[in-house]
Amino acid sequence: MTSANKLKILNDPIYGFITIPATLLYDLIQHPYFQRLRRIKQMGLSSLVYPGAEHTRFHHALGCMHMMQKAVQVLRFKNVEISKEEEEALYIAILLHDIGHGPFSHAMEHSIVENIHHEEISLLFMEALNEEFEGKLSLAIEIFKGNYPRKFLIQLISSQMDMDRMDYLKRDSFYSGVAEGNINSERLIQMINVHNDVLVVEEKGIYSVEKFLVARRLMYWQCYLHKTSVGAELLLSKILKRAKQLTLQGVDLPASNALKFFLENNVLKADFNKEVLNNFALLDDADIYTALKNWQFHTDKVLSYLSSAIVNRKLFHVQLVSKDDLISKLSYYQDLCKDKLEVTDELDYFVFGDKLKNQAYDLKADPIRIFTKNKEIIDVLEASDQYNLKALSEPVYKYFICYPKSIHKVG
Amino acid sequence: MTSANKLKILNDPIYGFITIPATLLYDLIQHPYFQRLRRIKQMGLSSLVYPGAEHTRFHHALGCMHMMQKAVQVLRFKNVEISKEEEEALYIAILLHDIGHGPFSHAMEHSIVENIHHEEISLLFMEALNEEFEGKLSLAIEIFKGNYPRKFLIQLISSQMDMDRMDYLKRDSFYSGVAEGNINSERLIQMINVHNDVLVVEEKGIYSVEKFLVARRLMYWQCYLHKTSVGAELLLSKILKRAKQLTLQGVDLPASNALKFFLENNVLKADFNKEVLNNFALLDDADIYTALKNWQFHTDKVLSYLSSAIVNRKLFHVQLVSKDDLISKLSYYQDLCKDKLEVTDELDYFVFGDKLKNQAYDLKADPIRIFTKNKEIIDVLEASDQYNLKALSEPVYKYFICYPKSIHKVG
Amino acid sequence: MTSANKLKILNDPIYGFITIPATLLYDLIQHPYFQRLRRIKQMGLSSLVYPGAEHTRFHHALGCMHMMQKAVQVLRFKNVEISKEEEEALYIAILLHDIGHGPFSHAMEHSIVENIHHEEISLLFMEALNEEFEGKLSLAIEIFKGNYPRKFLIQLISSQMDMDRMDYLKRDSFYSGVAEGNINSERLIQMINVHNDVLVVEEKGIYSVEKFLVARRLMYWQCYLHKTSVGAELLLSKILKRAKQLTLQGVDLPASNALKFFLENNVLKADFNKEVLNNFALLDDADIYTALKNWQFHTDKVLSYLSSAIVNRKLFHVQLVSKDDLISKLSYYQDLCKDKLEVTDELDYFVFGDKLKNQAYDLKADPIRIFTKNKEIIDVLEASDQYNLKALSEPVYKYFICYPKSIHKVG
Amino acid sequence: MTSANKLKILNDPIYGFITIPATLLYDLIQHPYFQRLRRIKQMGLSSLVYPGAEHTRFHHALGCMHMMQKAVQVLRFKNVEISKEEEEALYIAILLHDIGHGPFSHAMEHSIVENIHHEEISLLFMEALNEEFEGKLSLAIEIFKGNYPRKFLIQLISSQMDMDRMDYLKRDSFYSGVAEGNINSERLIQMINVHNDVLVVEEKGIYSVEKFLVARRLMYWQCYLHKTSVGAELLLSKILKRAKQLTLQGVDLPASNALKFFLENNVLKADFNKEVLNNFALLDDADIYTALKNWQFHTDKVLSYLSSAIVNRKLFHVQLVSKDDLISKLSYYQDLCKDKLEVTDELDYFVFGDKLKNQAYDLKADPIRIFTKNKEIIDVLEASDQYNLKALSEPVYKYFICYPKSIHKVG
Repeated sequence: MTSANKLKILNDPIYGFITIPATLLYDLIQHPYFQRLRRIKQMGLSSLVYPGAEHTRFHHALGCMHMMQKAVQVLRFKNVEISKEEEEALYIAILLHDIGHGPFSHAMEHSIVENIHHEEISLLFMEALNEEFEGKLSLAIEIFKGNYPRKFLIQLISSQMDMDRMDYLKRDSFYSGVAEGNINSERLIQMINVHNDVLVVEEKGIYSVEKFLVARRLMYWQCYLHKTSVGAELLLSKILKRAKQLTLQGVDLPASNALKFFLENNVLKADFNKEVLNNFALLDDADIYTALKNWQFHTDKVLSYLSSAIVNRKLFHVQLVSKDDLISKLSYYQDLCKDKLEVTDELDYFVFGDKLKNQAYDLKADPIRIFTKNKEIIDVLEASDQYNLKALSEPVYKYFICYPKSIHKVG
Repeated sequence: MTSANKLKILNDPIYGFITIPATLLYDLIQHPYFQRLRRIKQMGLSSLVYPGAEHTRFHHALGCMHMMQKAVQVLRFKNVEISKEEEEALYIAILLHDIGHGPFSHAMEHSIVENIHHEEISLLFMEALNEEFEGKLSLAIEIFKGNYPRKFLIQLISSQMDMDRMDYLKRDSFYSGVAEGNINSERLIQMINVHNDVLVVEEKGIYSVEKFLVARRLMYWQCYLHKTSVGAELLLSKILKRAKQLTLQGVDLPASNALKFFLENNVLKADFNKEVLNNFALLDDADIYTALKNWQFHTDKVLSYLSSAIVNRKLFHVQLVSKDDLISKLSYYQDLCKDKLEVTDELDYFVFGDKLKNQAYDLKADPIRIFTKNKEIIDVLEASDQYNLKALSEPVYKYFICYPKSIHKVG
Repeated sequence: MTSANKLKILNDPIYGFITIPATLLYDLIQHPYFQRLRRIKQMGLSSLVYPGAEHTRFHHALGCMHMMQKAVQVLRFKNVEISKEEEEALYIAILLHDIGHGPFSHAMEHSIVENIHHEEISLLFMEALNEEFEGKLSLAIEIFKGNYPRKFLIQLISSQMDMDRMDYLKRDSFYSGVAEGNINSERLIQMINVHNDVLVVEEKGIYSVEKFLVARRLMYWQCYLHKTSVGAELLLSKILKRAKQLTLQGVDLPASNALKFFLENNVLKADFNKEVLNNFALLDDADIYTALKNWQFHTDKVLSYLSSAIVNRKLFHVQLVSKDDLISKLSYYQDLCKDKLEVTDELDYFVFGDKLKNQAYDLKADPIRIFTKNKEIIDVLEASDQYNLKALSEPVYKYFICYPKSIHKVG
Repeated sequence: MTSANKLKILNDPIYGFITIPATLLYDLIQHPYFQRLRRIKQMGLSSLVYPGAEHTRFHHALGCMHMMQKAVQVLRFKNVEISKEEEEALYIAILLHDIGHGPFSHAMEHSIVENIHHEEISLLFMEALNEEFEGKLSLAIEIFKGNYPRKFLIQLISSQMDMDRMDYLKRDSFYSGVAEGNINSERLIQMINVHNDVLVVEEKGIYSVEKFLVARRLMYWQCYLHKTSVGAELLLSKILKRAKQLTLQGVDLPASNALKFFLENNVLKADFNKEVLNNFALLDDADIYTALKNWQFHTDKVLSYLSSAIVNRKLFHVQLVSKDDLISKLSYYQDLCKDKLEVTDELDYFVFGDKLKNQAYDLKADPIRIFTKNKEIIDVLEASDQYNLKALSEPVYKYFICYPKSIHKVG
């Protein structure tokens, strides 16, 4: 009988328990690079709309690892060979696939950490960890980069039906309370298989896949693209842009050291050395919130007005408009703004817009493959003409503008 | 048909929906004093042990209001008269009952905001809001203070079976994933009634009450008094004490303005004027985390060592000891610490202890009253000799010490 | 304080509790006509495929009444006027809307109780009860027949988004474990409203309606039209046909008195007097199972072979075929059957086929109306071109044949 | 890649899926002896009180097998050796441990199948199946009889914390909707281990064990010993006794052949040959219900009165009384009965009583063993003086009497 102490188990409201399957994974989880994910919310500002959506990227990453364990179990049950090394690499890669996320990723990527995508930063973290752990992450990195010959391994990590989506759709639906977005991950995983080293779904799983795509689309409209939270995110990116602008003008804004670093420096992809990475690793939601709270009293009207809007949840009005009306509506509200708020410059900090895109299934990406009873492989869209999936592959665009509620009342 | 816009509904993963029943309540929720609760976690540092426990005091307060709506519905169904005014006052009082919590309340109350209990601060907030809302909270405050003649109203807000407990036990169990702590709040509320203006539970509800008390005790041992998270909390109070000590010695620690205010000033109950309250209202989890992240690089060894322990989750070892061994164990590990960490003074920042108390039912407090079929009222403990509840009223004490794991390995 | 005894509450694994809102409803539930529904499974033979699907028509009827209470609550909250009398009539009508179901309704309606639909029998029961309860069901019957001027009342009882569907989709999904079919009834009901006495759904509820239709279609393919259980049902109707045939030939089959009555008599709609109704009211699943168990040892080979197939779950093979192949496949397997089972006549008792139809939304029926923010009413299909609902209104047909597995192995 | 067809999976509303782990198990499940369990409800007449409690012994047996798979997985993870043969034997034994149950077991065992316990009949079925399956069940039978040297195997099947209880408490709580009785089976199983071939629970699992025992006691009071359903069961045993009495007097009661067999014959344990077993195997809930429905119109007043009481749910009043009052109360109500119902003989068919016993933990049975961190084994009751478990080991008795409601109204 082995000591039960070696059996590391974490509670999860969704799955009950998550088991950490190996010492190396335990050590990676313990690393400060990974622990920081405890302080980064998975859904960013969505909790302003869905107060339950406070779950972290830390928990999501563990959930993905749990889903991957299920997948390995199902595939082995179906006699798909997966070596011990491949198995561990899968767990490492899925655990770390999102480690490059900063706080409020989308807002950051459009303001102070431009020109580098979070997946690239994930890879930088993995490589730094690989050095520290003496090469034990090499196979995981190989798979993550798409260089490993057995394609289903990367497909389990990153594809239109990967373990990332299996967890995040379920988790985000669970915590936000948007029950329509719930997917039956366990059943979906039960349906996967591997044919010629490519990930497939058995034919009888086609309803589950359809349900999964419908749920994904719903989660986009109701959560990820919820206009109020998208508006809040845009607001935050405006704040960060303004803060950077002021900093570069020499204004000394109160901020944590890590945040200051990114306000003061224009970091490009090529600049992402170890020092930058370590500064990035110190950044989380707390830095942003603390800054916003201080900035709401700043003398710069743009900075204080916008910061207060988030801190005290006096969010801007978000209005859907037709594509054609976008420009005219923007200028209409900017004029209003000029009067009511007595702002002259910087009007596009107060009135702004953007577009939303929702596409549940991407025809151009690696498809979801159905493995038929006749042992053929077909794209899920073609699997049967009675499934109304094609409509789900059409991207839908919506346009919106944001402006302070106060100017509207009198408009 | 009324515009659906007036029907304010929030999602809740536990109850499905929470309805905001009146405009005044909506306005109170929108107030910055209340919005700040979005940034204060209900279970403080427990998420270091239970990664799902990220839910906020904001959501809990809404949940309590929801439970109160159920209670009013059940009581009215049973022909208990509750006026419109009393109803609204109940919702206000329960919504705001915890508004006086700061971040990591317990650690704060033992370090930088001593001598004043969060319930007293709640009352200060309520009074400030009452002024702002022109007296509309007066009845709620009257009830909250225990001055209103109909006792069941305050019992619904604060007693051994109040709507606060109905929500927090359920919510904390749900988010932490400690399923044993789950209580059936809906059924419990179904069982309440009022007799002579006093809250009672119908006799057939006795199993549910028992289950509730057992669940409460389990939640204490497994969550609220989990030794790792209690140890972390103690660590945090040590950090804040140290920070205050250094500040008073003239060291300028990086901190948000709000946090600085409380490090620099010894605030007593009598000092809690509007300015203090407004500073307090700016304080939340983000200030603490941002400070800790900065302080982990400070030159003061105590401050940096302890701050890093929380930020990077290198928590201290927490060991249960017998009451008699407490002193000797503390001094044994302090000696060890002196050697290993090369610390001479300030040893009680590195090795410290405390006691835990668990008492599911307090015999000295207002009891849970069972209303029998013979229309008698008896204490739930006496309701039947076949219920093993008496054991639950015995307080249980445990003693523990904390010390850095590093000194142990070589010890 | 009213005696809690008057508060009738039933447990429900799905909703927690179901409250019986009035004495008349309690008395109707207590009536033997209604109590018999305890012995009739909601999903008939589906439990042969989904072993959890053992729930009864009794529980479903109560669940519908519960959903209706929610609907009334929501509509009144939105200032839709519903009188006390209309409210009670709604509960009565939904409670009794399915009371005319016999055991394994579909199989019965295709064999021994032909030419009369269960809704017609429901009405007969309601009228008999109305007599007994001295006219108290008159308004309910008026609404049920569609004669009442306020159309939304009948729409709540019978339409493409009625309370019947709200409960049965949720309940059948829950008990069968086909989680994909789960619908968020509470949210859907939250979205309904009434405009000019017609039931509408608010625009923001459009995703929920879409999800509801998708779930409905999935439940059809995976549960109601699951080929194995549809095959079993067809088998049962063959057995009952054979039993009737033998009885009319003078063979005295063991059967309960109630079942004998329907084997011996050709009951037409016009014949459904009180005596017939009372015999019908004695019939439930137990009569059928007891008969099948006895008949499996009967000397008539058809009767014994088919009865044993259901009792011992040696179900026939069910094969999907193209419409064009249907005839030729049937005759192919009938030939096989002749050899293997040594049957000459009665071949269509051993090899038979049918077609399945699935249509999530019926364009020809009363539509689901969306009430837009501009206060227009449009069919949900037209509500937006980005919703891929149109595909769901296309009926899909599948053809299948059934034959004993034993003939296949050697075929 | 293996054909997915060999992967037999069943839906379960509680666990999601149940996998059938081997061909032999599949064949046993397909056997008519096992299929009959589909027609026997797990909780007998409890559905008269809890309308959701319609689940069958079939589903429970599959659930136990599922729990056993979890247990094997956990134990092997902890390096407990379990051979392939032992594993399969465990699954067989737990699958078949309850196969000897007849319909409404308790009522039957007190009326028409006296003197033989259902576990003995289970063994008879296993032995018959072992013959049919050429000895493949021998090891399972060995373990089931308690003859196998490794004690933890039988403890997993039958002890105070066996896989039977893991499933039935959870399942019965789930379907009845008595949420207080829910146990966290997954967590409990996570805590088991084996020491010296004896089943133990790790020390940290002590709260879960406590919760399990409390839940068990609650399920007894609220479900298994619910006075209304116990009263109904007693009523049924009276009916069956009367039917046997009449049959032995030469009255020819309508009944299925299988039921007739047991009414006509006094079957003792020694008589249980293959013929008796096969007759027993034909008996299920349907025979009883069909008989009751016919008997409610019989000329024997006792038989018709009591049968109608169950069929139409006009259940007797059940009244708790003190032990001392039992005799006098019985005679008081029998006198009443004589007058009101005009019965002279057979009074104890109309007014009768019994006692209930509830004991959550049996001190005389094989204990639940806690394995401490110091590697000691202690009885859970002794594991710590702070756990109020001792009270749970005290048996509690209640006495009750039943009589027709009609006589009470005028009493």
